[in-house]
Amino acid sequence: MTDHLPLTSPQDPKPGSQSALRHRNEQLIVATLRELGPLPQAELARTTGLSTATVSNIVKSMCAEGLAHTSPTTSSGRRALAVSLLESPHVVVGIDFGRSHVRIVLASADHQVRAEKSAPLPVGHLATESIATAATMLADALAESGISRSDVMGAGIGVPGPIDHRTGTVIRGAILPEWVGVNIVARLEEALGMPVFADNDANLGALAQVTWGEHSAVRDLVFLKIGSGIGAGLILNGAPYYGHTGITGEIGHATIFDQGLVCRCGNRGCLETVASTALMIELLSRGEPRPLTVQDIIARATSGDAAALRVIDDAGMAVGRAVANVANMINPEIIVVGGPLAALGHILLDPIRRGLTRHAVPAIGEATTVVMSSLGDRAEVLGAVSLALNHTRKH
Amino acid sequence: MTDHLPLTSPQDPKPGSQSALRHRNEQLIVATLRELGPLPQAELARTTGLSTATVSNIVKSMCAEGLAHTSPTTSSGRRALAVSLLESPHVVVGIDFGRSHVRIVLASADHQVRAEKSAPLPVGHLATESIATAATMLADALAESGISRSDVMGAGIGVPGPIDHRTGTVIRGAILPEWVGVNIVARLEEALGMPVFADNDANLGALAQVTWGEHSAVRDLVFLKIGSGIGAGLILNGAPYYGHTGITGEIGHATIFDQGLVCRCGNRGCLETVASTALMIELLSRGEPRPLTVQDIIARATSGDAAALRVIDDAGMAVGRAVANVANMINPEIIVVGGPLAALGHILLDPIRRGLTRHAVPAIGEATTVVMSSLGDRAEVLGAVSLALNHTRKH
Repeated sequence: MTDHLPLTSPQDPKPGSQSALRHRNEQLIVATLRELGPLPQAELARTTGLSTATVSNIVKSMCAEGLAHTSPTTSSGRRALAVSLLESPHVVVGIDFGRSHVRIVLASADHQVRAEKSAPLPVGHLATESIATAATMLADALAESGISRSDVMGAGIGVPGPIDHRTGTVIRGAILPEWVGVNIVARLEEALGMPVFADNDANLGALAQVTWGEHSAVRDLVFLKIGSGIGAGLILNGAPYYGHTGITGEIGHATIFDQGLVCRCGNRGCLETVASTALMIELLSRGEPRPLTVQDIIARATSGDAAALRVIDDAGMAVGRAVANVANMINPEIIVVGGPLAALGHILLDPIRRGLTRHAVPAIGEATTVVMSSLGDRAEVLGAVSLALNHTRKH
Repeated sequence: MTDHLPLTSPQDPKPGSQSALRHRNEQLIVATLRELGPLPQAELARTTGLSTATVSNIVKSMCAEGLAHTSPTTSSGRRALAVSLLESPHVVVGIDFGRSHVRIVLASADHQVRAEKSAPLPVGHLATESIATAATMLADALAESGISRSDVMGAGIGVPGPIDHRTGTVIRGAILPEWVGVNIVARLEEALGMPVFADNDANLGALAQVTWGEHSAVRDLVFLKIGSGIGAGLILNGAPYYGHTGITGEIGHATIFDQGLVCRCGNRGCLETVASTALMIELLSRGEPRPLTVQDIIARATSGDAAALRVIDDAGMAVGRAVANVANMINPEIIVVGGPLAALGHILLDPIRRGLTRHAVPAIGEATTVVMSSLGDRAEVLGAVSLALNHTRKH
């Protein structure tokens, strides 16, 4: 599996080897042609400092691979061959599977969205059904946008749960218990007929912030998704961070109360047991004729309902406390809050900031910014597009 | 300040520029000479794929800078110039300032220790006194080892507290309150007459694990220093991790008890208030004629004293709980425990592992290894040597 390599990971062959040298020289030629446009071979050799024989060999094999072509030109009054790069349209697809929805985006390498679709999924949906739904949506999106499947270089997939990058399977602890143990990458490659790269939805939300959002200059970012589960995605040193086995950002299982409620992970008093939307619904639905929805809670809180405001405030303070411990350790520049509660704005941000300031080392509390994601419910699917782009770029 | 750049940070000029190309080609020549030894220029051009003119220009300027020299040879029966690299002895010094000691190590780039010294410092020592002591120790070490000061390329400095990498000063929260606000880098550069690179002692402990210890293949490591303070150093994606402002690893201030004891950081119930050696001394010294030392506690615990064992067990469980939250977020391969309690071995490791397993997501608890540092009390000073080497290497 290559779907969890950090973006900056050296994917080159062993330095010093012949193939590494060759790769390095080809990269240099591609970078030069990208910057200066088509060039005669002699000029390419002069600009790069490579010998004409080296340039000629590399250009020959790039032409054979369909990466470049040559056309007659004149250089200093003599006949010559101009080398140009051949770049394909390079379209990818992002697919975000949620607990009750699937969303897909077709986009090109310059971050232009070419088609976008979403559909509801029944809660408790099996992987098989959801994969079939996504495959149909992709076929429709291709037909409508006039893009050929063979031009789609790959698919990025978001799943609301941890994926063990050693096996490619969704592991225990996922918000989709029906998907646990499924090899999501293999199944989707078969259904979609293209390379598939899968990641946790919170990781993709984080990636979207630095590739589609306003935080492209941020090197250390935490994306915090508060929903029926609570998870975080990390951008560290400018690249997605995956840790040793690919299971990171499990802030929802930070212990808040030693003897608190039992959590679906098997521990007690986890953040999810005091601050998830599931807990908010449970607390606020007592005495109601039917359980509230997240939309109901948002509506009540924004219209000033005291009980809804108190439940959100308590949850926000607990999130802030967990976030403080994270900030103390990894000192992010910014924490971006996403998920279905985004419409609450400062009603949710204020208690998170208060909890952060109360529990972080003062110098960390002061230096950490907390904001709402501006990408709304598209953050994960846009991150899935970026994941696919990162893995399918030729250079 | 450059002393917090991650090792893998691209320090090269802008790619595509003339100087970037030049730098890249020079790196290629150096790497080739390192691997294959002295080579004639024509051979160097053939091996690298660079033109003979490019090779000749770069070799000329490397000779002018004292980085290479050429000597007559024959190649294919014709007279030629063989190019060899000139590498200086490249010695650096590491200095570790503790609450009650200073330790220095002179070492060469191949990790050979050339001289080593340590001395006690009075608790509450001022920065001025300690810097003078270190300067004298360095002068003695140079004299004894016959190394000239001009051959020492720089000094790495460890300080038991956070350093704000934007200002180079020791910040509030340090175990050395007398040093807060001191610009340690500027002061030491003046006293030692060489470039100085400073870092937090736990960060250096982490760096030592992957440069001097048995964990050189580990890409994601937490070094946990348990002493009168508790701090962590991080190696993430194979490089020291410094976060946004350079203050990371403040696990000692993770909230354990919401209404616990007041901590020196201004919060309550921090891990340091339940698991530092200061708290162990306080708990076990009640009714004793004089306060116990850390050595007393180790001696009592290893001889089976029930009170000492209980205090260490409770502290270890609390450390394990805080470590579980960290492991849930960043999924390290290994957590290495250092500091003055290392001699306790499994007496301390067992409760830490129990706390980790109890509070981590199961898949994380199972995948995280916890061990004692094998570098003992030299971890920080050896990390300081590595810090200096990382910043003074020519290529």
